[in-house]
Amino acid sequence: MQKITYLEKPIYFEAFSAVGGYEEGRGPLGESFDFIDEKDLFGMKTWEKAEGEMSRIALNLALKKKGLSPSELNVLVAGDLQNQCVASSGGLFSFGVPFLGLYGACSTCTEGLLVLSSMLTTSKTYTRGASVTSSHNCAAERQFRTPIEYGGQRSPTAQWTATASGAFILSKERSHAKITAFMPGKIVDGYTKDQSNMGAAMALAAFDSIARFFEENNPDDFDLIMTGDLGAVGSSILEDLLSEKLTRYGTKLASLHKDAGLLLYDLNGRDVHSGASGCGCSASVLASHVLPKVVSGELSRILFLSTGALMSTSSVSQGDNILGVAPLLRIEHEDF
Amino acid sequence: MQKITYLEKPIYFEAFSAVGGYEEGRGPLGESFDFIDEKDLFGMKTWEKAEGEMSRIALNLALKKKGLSPSELNVLVAGDLQNQCVASSGGLFSFGVPFLGLYGACSTCTEGLLVLSSMLTTSKTYTRGASVTSSHNCAAERQFRTPIEYGGQRSPTAQWTATASGAFILSKERSHAKITAFMPGKIVDGYTKDQSNMGAAMALAAFDSIARFFEENNPDDFDLIMTGDLGAVGSSILEDLLSEKLTRYGTKLASLHKDAGLLLYDLNGRDVHSGASGCGCSASVLASHVLPKVVSGELSRILFLSTGALMSTSSVSQGDNILGVAPLLRIEHEDF
Repeated sequence: MQKITYLEKPIYFEAFSAVGGYEEGRGPLGESFDFIDEKDLFGMKTWEKAEGEMSRIALNLALKKKGLSPSELNVLVAGDLQNQCVASSGGLFSFGVPFLGLYGACSTCTEGLLVLSSMLTTSKTYTRGASVTSSHNCAAERQFRTPIEYGGQRSPTAQWTATASGAFILSKERSHAKITAFMPGKIVDGYTKDQSNMGAAMALAAFDSIARFFEENNPDDFDLIMTGDLGAVGSSILEDLLSEKLTRYGTKLASLHKDAGLLLYDLNGRDVHSGASGCGCSASVLASHVLPKVVSGELSRILFLSTGALMSTSSVSQGDNILGVAPLLRIEHEDF
Repeated sequence: MQKITYLEKPIYFEAFSAVGGYEEGRGPLGESFDFIDEKDLFGMKTWEKAEGEMSRIALNLALKKKGLSPSELNVLVAGDLQNQCVASSGGLFSFGVPFLGLYGACSTCTEGLLVLSSMLTTSKTYTRGASVTSSHNCAAERQFRTPIEYGGQRSPTAQWTATASGAFILSKERSHAKITAFMPGKIVDGYTKDQSNMGAAMALAAFDSIARFFEENNPDDFDLIMTGDLGAVGSSILEDLLSEKLTRYGTKLASLHKDAGLLLYDLNGRDVHSGASGCGCSASVLASHVLPKVVSGELSRILFLSTGALMSTSSVSQGDNILGVAPLLRIEHEDF
């Protein structure tokens, strides 16, 4: 049975950072990123290595903000979209921090913060840990579809995998932004096989988690419901579902909804079609745009959920439906 | 800094099961498996789907042992070796249990039990959850190397990816086997690029975790140190390292060591070369062979660690070293 975990003692955001590439840099949130490499290569020779290096830079920048050294981290959780998550392991290896690898597709940012909150709560001896997620457009395109050099035509419902990484340092020390509750999501059938329309596939998972969460939370207490990367198509499906299926709160919930995939890029006249996606999308939007507002108190309580499309090239070629999952976090401002 | 987490309240094994294929069935532990399909297909049409179905069967069998329904599970953690871990998500989707996907390569069994123990400890409302891991020889061969139909010659140092799954139900209710401590492992450079010798690549990670753990535990209190799938080559490297590098305890630690990859198959005259590997290896050996001895009291306290080789076909082709990781669990008998 799906239960919400309310943390007796909250877990705090101590520092966070967002790193991105060219498309992210010229987007509406570009100015808020901590580091942009317009060449998307981050000094590396391959897109795959560039993704790992981006994660390394993101974690370094987050550590630097508080003058922390890697040895002050007790645990590191990380994940990405590359086969066998090698961007995370290869990119973050040099920190020498005990490592837990995750795979939740584009939901990995939320899953990572959830697992890390749990680890910090469980362990009396842990004081802080980090969660890092990343995606790289060019690595993802050639792994899942075709190399970008091929210049394949993309469907209007397709999303643009973000070249971005977000790093978060969580701690038991008080700060102005905290995680107070979390809930893993059920795997939900997206009822589609179209890998160029993942927003639609994931919208049902987001709906399932949000509906469950607000069985015992009141939307009037929330300023924002932020999904990870539903994009234009998935967001419209989610808002329709909320309004039509949840008679008690649905309209309110739909009005609170924003999607990170619609915030990262200017959708007009760019080739990003239905918006951003990828593990780096929700992570970088959370770090660059959402958490600063929670810290300042502009947002006092939010629901944050990334959505993941659980599929691979082999599951698609073998005719499987795309499955979705949407773990969630309740994040709050703390005043002091 | 790498710290061991000692659980104030232990987390108990409520039920567990092991499922395997032809090679596992005719191995020394075959009789102890809960289910064997000699065709390796488990009624499915592809090797990839067979792996998911194997996990589904394993979890069903574990639930059945205690007469539990899936709705009595609060959380499910799972992982495998397939790209994007689709065996776990696709195979376990139908249970409808909140899901956290993991990727720790062949260390995923230990990582899953570690994360699940943490989730159960953190959440006051959770009563039980499940951890499931799997690997399939034919799915792994065609994904990482060549399809088995190709009949490629394998190196003598190569291991045989187990066609196996292990499912574990953990709970706060008292039983005769419990997890009392855990520690995630650091990512350790295996100093090799040879993907036909993963045991060697992972031995250094196992050594690192064991050495750290016994800085504050006494080997005299332990009956067994079980690694996941170092095989013949990796086991001999680990035992040499323990004996030579740890002057205080090394010989004792080496004498306590056994490897799941050397127990699953009869190595004489079979094509398994250096022994078993894969996410399903340590999971099925733990469920079929080790935990029954902990439950009976034949083993009173053990250290269990699976080892994972963090690499992909692209990291290998781009010339990266193979990295290893070895999370660990302290598992104890409880008498009552």
